[in-house]
Amino acid sequence: MNCIIRPCTVKDCKVILQFIKEIAVHYRVPPIEVKVTLEVLREDGFGAQPQYDCYVAELPPQQTNKEGGIVGYVLSSFTYSAWKGRNLYVDNLYVQPQFRGQQIGKRLIEKAAQAAVAKGCGQLRMHIAKWKTNEMGFLARQGGQDLTAKEGWSLFHLKEDALRRLAARSKF
Amino acid sequence: MNCIIRPCTVKDCKVILQFIKEIAVHYRVPPIEVKVTLEVLREDGFGAQPQYDCYVAELPPQQTNKEGGIVGYVLSSFTYSAWKGRNLYVDNLYVQPQFRGQQIGKRLIEKAAQAAVAKGCGQLRMHIAKWKTNEMGFLARQGGQDLTAKEGWSLFHLKEDALRRLAARSKF
Repeated sequence: MNCIIRPCTVKDCKVILQFIKEIAVHYRVPPIEVKVTLEVLREDGFGAQPQYDCYVAELPPQQTNKEGGIVGYVLSSFTYSAWKGRNLYVDNLYVQPQFRGQQIGKRLIEKAAQAAVAKGCGQLRMHIAKWKTNEMGFLARQGGQDLTAKEGWSLFHLKEDALRRLAARSKF
Repeated sequence: MNCIIRPCTVKDCKVILQFIKEIAVHYRVPPIEVKVTLEVLREDGFGAQPQYDCYVAELPPQQTNKEGGIVGYVLSSFTYSAWKGRNLYVDNLYVQPQFRGQQIGKRLIEKAAQAAVAKGCGQLRMHIAKWKTNEMGFLARQGGQDLTAKEGWSLFHLKEDALRRLAARSKF
């Protein structure tokens, strides 16, 4: 598949949002958990203070599908490690099911890695659900290591209500 | 302990770096893994493009210790979730051993949460090593959930060499 890998534009946000919702269904996440809207995605990616980077995989014009030729994307942001400095955090790497097995995911993550190295990142991090064995194998083939298995790291989160309760207690 | 919780300044970076090294020893991380230097920490936190937020816990003047009164810190950055929007990612929360059990860690994370909510974050994320049962208990008491235990999420990483190999393959 001769896809083009290119930066996401504000016009692509509609397709990205559709993909995000497809993924949420796949992970059996209740619709209420998907809080981003088209406006949020546009503002957060292409407003005054961009908060994420995104690349899309697009089919050549003669092969376009109903979504306008975009068949996958990678969405990432930067985190900071006190030990390693700036890191790339890949939040989402997605290729539509019917276009898998054609190295599109690999080319998307290569592009994200290229942009990350150019911005001085010393590490790439990503979370993968244990039942996604294909994705785990894919990332291992790209040189990834499972730090949860190897070193016992767990991901904790505070949802919005817990975060707000915590914030409300700070008096300073 | 009547600590002051305040934003870290460029002058505090020296103490923060010392703490970072103390933590690395505690985690048995080889010194080579700690890549940040004083210059990097100053530039990345207080240069033209700040990459992390940091708050410190400081003793009142009459109780200062040899590190100049700073006994703990919290270091965080923002990540972006395609489902939830902007998140706070806490990379490091540290209180010197002799000052623990006095709610200082709690006050530091409350302050980080307050700043995160003010910046529109809908979630807080943090990684904790499984053998740090005290920290896991602490975070659970703040309303945290272990997503690795609950939903099976694993943390993968690509170290710098793997990231650079991946980046070098991207032709676009």
